[in-house]
Amino acid sequence: MSGHLTIVGLGPGPAEWVTPAANAAIAAADVLLGYAPYLARLSPRAGQVFEASDNREELVRATRALELAGEGKRIVMVSGGDPGVFAMAAAVFEAVEKSPALANGFDIRVEPGVTAMLAAAARIGAPLGHDFCAISLSDNLKPWQVIEKRLRLAAEADFVIALYNPASKARPKQIQEAFRVLSAVRKPETTVVFARAVGRGDESIEVTTLRDAPNALCDMRTLVIIGSDATRRLQGGKGRTWVYTPRSVRDE
Amino acid sequence: MSGHLTIVGLGPGPAEWVTPAANAAIAAADVLLGYAPYLARLSPRAGQVFEASDNREELVRATRALELAGEGKRIVMVSGGDPGVFAMAAAVFEAVEKSPALANGFDIRVEPGVTAMLAAAARIGAPLGHDFCAISLSDNLKPWQVIEKRLRLAAEADFVIALYNPASKARPKQIQEAFRVLSAVRKPETTVVFARAVGRGDESIEVTTLRDAPNALCDMRTLVIIGSDATRRLQGGKGRTWVYTPRSVRDE
Repeated sequence: MSGHLTIVGLGPGPAEWVTPAANAAIAAADVLLGYAPYLARLSPRAGQVFEASDNREELVRATRALELAGEGKRIVMVSGGDPGVFAMAAAVFEAVEKSPALANGFDIRVEPGVTAMLAAAARIGAPLGHDFCAISLSDNLKPWQVIEKRLRLAAEADFVIALYNPASKARPKQIQEAFRVLSAVRKPETTVVFARAVGRGDESIEVTTLRDAPNALCDMRTLVIIGSDATRRLQGGKGRTWVYTPRSVRDE
Repeated sequence: MSGHLTIVGLGPGPAEWVTPAANAAIAAADVLLGYAPYLARLSPRAGQVFEASDNREELVRATRALELAGEGKRIVMVSGGDPGVFAMAAAVFEAVEKSPALANGFDIRVEPGVTAMLAAAARIGAPLGHDFCAISLSDNLKPWQVIEKRLRLAAEADFVIALYNPASKARPKQIQEAFRVLSAVRKPETTVVFARAVGRGDESIEVTTLRDAPNALCDMRTLVIIGSDATRRLQGGKGRTWVYTPRSVRDE
């Protein structure tokens, strides 16, 4: 029997955002590997093995998945959101590049999913309706000066900016530094959205401005969206606040 | 009875990439509106009305959807990909802003979906594994100098760049202009992926370099991904070519 490895994304949380393709891969797997909280969203069927691991062990987990697939097993690597966005798919290909022999004789497949910024955007309207970028604020894997340069150029390009991993217990202050960099280019009244735990029971969405953004609650479960100059805030029916970025940019 | 309007994304094509949440909204709708080729992917159930419209009529379609929801009907607006990315959700909020009274008394909801760049990335590996941006090359709705400036700054920021709407019959040459702008900043050997009709029967993926990109087939069904300096190409098992962007950036 020939094994295979499928890297799937579970979306931001609820089962209603998991694609049928991801569910089919999960149902067919002999072994599922992943960060423990992601595996905890699934229920093993008879004969299935779940191998949970810790957050910072991506490369070890990826190598293990390749080894198991090489033994002829059907392997699923689970990721939150989309597996290709700041997640496990890149880690698997890093492991393949490091040890090419590990990836011989079986198929690797990536199944796309709903990444956090799309779910966060949907909750508040359509802030990503025009050109945008996604930046991870975590400097575990890159120097802060790279992040700072990207923030500055993204602000100059007037992209809508989605910030992944904006803060954690080990990095509580970098988001403040990011707001300082952005504020040097963007207007203080630029719309900022803090979307926390989107799709979970304790979901909360806060809409504020770049001026007031430093006061907002921001942790590792938060996704931050900074609007472009064109991003608009409006009151819809039933007292809702919506944030959206129009499809067109006016000639200046 | 109180109506509502849900804007859903059907993903890039196949049913296996449509979320259960989108399917539930579609099943519950009285009237579905959308660009004809998107509606053609669905089968109306008894009592359901499909209102198909043309590509460039987004604002008319959005206004009509708001009117119908205001009459107490359950409305679904369908979009390809994710409705919040260069798609119908922004058009609906533009219509709300233009005529706020239209949006009174019913709920609006956006259901996220798998946007084209995530599906394209999954097919070829994990090119969006690190900081990236998404730019629409269509200048129907924005001046070309804005596009050019964003391309240049995105190249300087060393983002992976996903280009939506890279070419059409009316705009066959802009993608070549885009490659010229990017080539002034990025190395000629930068990896470029042309992902055409992802998820459809005639899907094709071409991996090339910025130097050779002008020779690739590129049309309105193509999504183009330009790698960062860190993006890597590797040979996996079974003769596959993979493209991925590592999670880390080295200190320079």
